[in-house]
Amino acid sequence: MIEYRNLRIALLGAGAVGAQVAALLLEHGDELASRVGAGLELVGVAVRDLDAPRSTEIPRELLTTDARSLILGADIVIELMGGIEPAREYLMLALNSGADVITANKALLATHGPELFEEAEQVGAQLYYEAAVGGAIPIIRPLRDSLAGDRVHRILGIVNGTTNFILDRMDREGDSLEEALAAATELGYAEADPTADIEGFDAAQKAAILASLAFHTTVPLDMVHREGITAITHEQVRSAREAGFVVKLLAVCERVTDPETGVEGVSARVHPALVPQSHPLAAVHGANNAVFLEAEAAGSLMFYGAGAGGIQTASAVLGDVVSAARRHVIGGPGVAESTNADLPILPMSSVVTRYQITLQVADRPGVLAKIATLFSDHGVSVEAVQQSVRPDAAHGSAAYPGHSIPEPTATLVIGTHEATEGSLADTVVALGASDAVVEVTSVLRVEGTV
Amino acid sequence: MIEYRNLRIALLGAGAVGAQVAALLLEHGDELASRVGAGLELVGVAVRDLDAPRSTEIPRELLTTDARSLILGADIVIELMGGIEPAREYLMLALNSGADVITANKALLATHGPELFEEAEQVGAQLYYEAAVGGAIPIIRPLRDSLAGDRVHRILGIVNGTTNFILDRMDREGDSLEEALAAATELGYAEADPTADIEGFDAAQKAAILASLAFHTTVPLDMVHREGITAITHEQVRSAREAGFVVKLLAVCERVTDPETGVEGVSARVHPALVPQSHPLAAVHGANNAVFLEAEAAGSLMFYGAGAGGIQTASAVLGDVVSAARRHVIGGPGVAESTNADLPILPMSSVVTRYQITLQVADRPGVLAKIATLFSDHGVSVEAVQQSVRPDAAHGSAAYPGHSIPEPTATLVIGTHEATEGSLADTVVALGASDAVVEVTSVLRVEGTV
Repeated sequence: MIEYRNLRIALLGAGAVGAQVAALLLEHGDELASRVGAGLELVGVAVRDLDAPRSTEIPRELLTTDARSLILGADIVIELMGGIEPAREYLMLALNSGADVITANKALLATHGPELFEEAEQVGAQLYYEAAVGGAIPIIRPLRDSLAGDRVHRILGIVNGTTNFILDRMDREGDSLEEALAAATELGYAEADPTADIEGFDAAQKAAILASLAFHTTVPLDMVHREGITAITHEQVRSAREAGFVVKLLAVCERVTDPETGVEGVSARVHPALVPQSHPLAAVHGANNAVFLEAEAAGSLMFYGAGAGGIQTASAVLGDVVSAARRHVIGGPGVAESTNADLPILPMSSVVTRYQITLQVADRPGVLAKIATLFSDHGVSVEAVQQSVRPDAAHGSAAYPGHSIPEPTATLVIGTHEATEGSLADTVVALGASDAVVEVTSVLRVEGTV
Repeated sequence: MIEYRNLRIALLGAGAVGAQVAALLLEHGDELASRVGAGLELVGVAVRDLDAPRSTEIPRELLTTDARSLILGADIVIELMGGIEPAREYLMLALNSGADVITANKALLATHGPELFEEAEQVGAQLYYEAAVGGAIPIIRPLRDSLAGDRVHRILGIVNGTTNFILDRMDREGDSLEEALAAATELGYAEADPTADIEGFDAAQKAAILASLAFHTTVPLDMVHREGITAITHEQVRSAREAGFVVKLLAVCERVTDPETGVEGVSARVHPALVPQSHPLAAVHGANNAVFLEAEAAGSLMFYGAGAGGIQTASAVLGDVVSAARRHVIGGPGVAESTNADLPILPMSSVVTRYQITLQVADRPGVLAKIATLFSDHGVSVEAVQQSVRPDAAHGSAAYPGHSIPEPTATLVIGTHEATEGSLADTVVALGASDAVVEVTSVLRVEGTV
């Protein structure tokens, strides 16, 4: 039945994902070959250190430190090394030598995607990257193909498993950020240096990739607004729960119209946000990922699954291997990445969203009116105010400047209508300067509401 | 920028979906063209009656009753007529004339899929059908491509919006089946003749398509076990809720090993089932659809969204239009459907699952032991028994044969471990014949547990 020659597959990198890809290719090679109509031969695995310990055994004779020679003899090159260089150089070499390339390297795609896609188009090869976002969850193909005839309005993504695990622990177990991070590290969900995850760098790379794909527009990484979860307190998570929300680190990619200039464009941002408990994203627990998407014709869709993990990510890589191999068998050039829409990328100041602001205020007559005026002076419309006098002294009072006796304070939780980032920021500064305000405890965006 | 000639698109059918596809193609044609690199020209819409009222206006000059001539001049043919003939004949004509074809016709695919796929492969064309299952939810491409390198173990799908709407109403509003069906009809979720939906025919067609794709094996429609929701009572739904379950009409496609013969194969079935309230599928409300999938490497994934509706389904059709058009521009034959695995299709008797059985039994000593023995005699292992004496006479008592005074009865809810369909059926027959059992009230399969 199989008449085509064997396809030669080169693997670059044998870390958690790479070792699983090698194992699955060796174990299920015949099954995959029958789906493709050609044999799939893993011809080599390029590593830095031949003797490094690996999660799964790879036959010694496949290992090599000579990535270049391996690439030049391959039909399909799988890059799972991570990092920018030499990954970029190797992928360019592979494309130039006529190979199709598969990568899970979100950092590389978010920074050098256009260069790689252009090279692939020039030589008629194809660049596959289903594993770069959402691990095993099919999200690249649905965006690229299934929704290619629709107009995506907004993506709300939980695209970083580590931070979702941490925030979920804080919500469901009452952990502090430090405790939750320690648990994540112990369970292998967080790396020794968790900066890329908890500061939102990883999620921002994925947001750049998703926004570029969804809006047919190259969205550079440095245009993605980024805030991590390090400032999120146990108290914020607890208050959110009481108010019917959960705190999630979201990648938000959307079409926006700047309210002042009227310019239509797209925006991508990563920050913690309050999500209503009734929203499907609120039910995404642990280290899982999910992408919630709103399109003009399709309406709301959600894709959910394991966002990381060696074997899960390997599933996405192997799907790309089968796609690339099928394309080799039938012949013809690859489909170019579509960035023709070339929409303006609008800065964070163009974004309009809702906010929830928590304040400690002096508990005396006229304070609420004063604060309400302060909001309206800055063009921010208040939707709801909830006031509670805290019975416990630790939260409920603070030394009043210039007085030795603490003045009684109250907590105000203010929900706004949609407001621009700029007017909200001005309001917060004014709140901080007001003598009615003891402390601005929390400012969080609210996403996922109608 | 666009150098390729215009691609000629023929549309067959102008019903709810067809009219939306026409409208979107006419409205967003330029935007789609820029994604493809070629103009997309709707050259005609074949209808039976030129003067029939349509949900969306289609320019009169596009309408024709001559489908054959329209097909012969097209690059891409979209079939949205429904039914088997002449849809099958037209698609064969289109493929033979070198066109790519797009269809949302699940009935046709489930019965004549192999013939159509073979024809497409012979002529090097491609058959797209993302809209046939799950409306706008991308599920065909994820199964066909993203998971092509993995091994799918099981699919649990809510693939019929009408029945999900009805069961959800019964669960959340306390409606009877008749009331819920009336509401579905009034809201346009159910057709005048709801047989195809409520008897599970529609879901069975989708199960055949999903199973064929997931297991790389042609699964004929007549091998799909099918039960509808017409026997589901308000009482069953209420009891399920109390026990922590919801009743859902599921399409279950899975790899199975026949417990007696040891033969490994695949099975597809459609029936109402108890799903734990904590399972992601339990949160799929209204007329929404969702496909929950378990794969060897990817783990658990879920795809969720609107399963029907003219404009939502049109989104999936237009995604296929863009895919087909991109393929035309780059050239080369289509990717053939992969059915190489050719696994045996096992009958329902090979399926092993868990059950929940509700009995009215005589409330006297020794009855529980008698019933437990009856289960074990038939090789069915009991996991849990819950007994409750119903205080209200209507449910709690029944005339005891041969006695004029009703004997007190009790309700037994019995959960089993995994058992074969055959041994369970034998057990139910034996229960019905036992003098300890007044009535077998309910027998439901339990799905979605570990």
